[in-house]
Amino acid sequence: MSEKTIIRRLPERAVTDRGAINAILDDGFVCHTAYVTGGRPVVIPILYARDGDRLLLHGSNSMGIVRAVRAGSPLSVAVTHLDGLVVARSAFNSSANYRSVVIHGEGRLLDGDQKRSALDLVVDRVLPGRLADLRSPTETEIGQTAVIELLLDQISAKVRSGGPEDEESDMNAGVWAGVIPIALTPGQPIPAKDLRAGVDVPDYLRHFRR
Amino acid sequence: MSEKTIIRRLPERAVTDRGAINAILDDGFVCHTAYVTGGRPVVIPILYARDGDRLLLHGSNSMGIVRAVRAGSPLSVAVTHLDGLVVARSAFNSSANYRSVVIHGEGRLLDGDQKRSALDLVVDRVLPGRLADLRSPTETEIGQTAVIELLLDQISAKVRSGGPEDEESDMNAGVWAGVIPIALTPGQPIPAKDLRAGVDVPDYLRHFRR
Repeated sequence: MSEKTIIRRLPERAVTDRGAINAILDDGFVCHTAYVTGGRPVVIPILYARDGDRLLLHGSNSMGIVRAVRAGSPLSVAVTHLDGLVVARSAFNSSANYRSVVIHGEGRLLDGDQKRSALDLVVDRVLPGRLADLRSPTETEIGQTAVIELLLDQISAKVRSGGPEDEESDMNAGVWAGVIPIALTPGQPIPAKDLRAGVDVPDYLRHFRR
Repeated sequence: MSEKTIIRRLPERAVTDRGAINAILDDGFVCHTAYVTGGRPVVIPILYARDGDRLLLHGSNSMGIVRAVRAGSPLSVAVTHLDGLVVARSAFNSSANYRSVVIHGEGRLLDGDQKRSALDLVVDRVLPGRLADLRSPTETEIGQTAVIELLLDQISAKVRSGGPEDEESDMNAGVWAGVIPIALTPGQPIPAKDLRAGVDVPDYLRHFRR
């Protein structure tokens, strides 16, 4: 089996093209960020947006990650999209289709104008078109919010796509094989209960998609 | 604003009920696991299944996490479901609906019969009904696979649901507010290109859902 593993095309592959990596990053809203505190790892989900060569992590100032970055902890960030379950003819070759980016680096807490423009940028990336409809954040709001900048220097990306890759000896088993596709799908916007009568869903949300 | 923050019902809440936590864990396929190596955090996506009071992380023996667990690194695991984007009348109150569980602990690499039955269990949880259609894994396959057991002792869970919670002063802005629901949706099974003619999609995959 080991010879076979070597010669067969592996459907799981490293991605190094920066455009392809950016596309994976731009396709998500929530990343998982790990930091170290007291020698132990902590991983949390956190909202993010990419801006050029940096990732902006958006949270509250009360979060443990803010204290950890202030205390000098390096970060590890993963953005993962599950695209399907690969149903092979053996448990061993069963797998998942996915796109995944992992970034390592030192986070930097933004302040002042840099923080202000980063906050706008996160809103604009998560909900394109929304910014023009919103008032500016107050000083208090900005004070309660944290934005951590992480440069996209140390990146690794991996993608698996396509159908199952089975052993020759399993092909005659008469067992179904294939892929169950999975996608993160947005639904129709649901208006707030206290929405003022006559306020329509704006176009930028009606056609919302990722 | 700080007084208001105190009196208003927060839509984000801690979850302590074990049944509710189990339901969040059982609703996912991929978790994000952080470990520490050389004092730095590393986070990776990894397939998992819950079995009673333990989580089973399923990977390849060549993964860095296997070496890290062997070297004694504690783990931090997050399971996160993004359920929607909360579109509030201000950037500050805009948010996400989600269900999230974070687990901390020491991982244990399973071996022998424990590993064998854990592998079966992961297949059965990810693709219920599939196990009966598959041959047993070979010794080589089992040797290349790793299963890390993590007890569900140190858990925290958080859920946000419902619509936006806006400031009174923003209510007259005439801006649309609400939620864009988001769900991880399975599609129709796609047969492998080399599927033998006459092999139908089994019922357990035809009605696949999470």
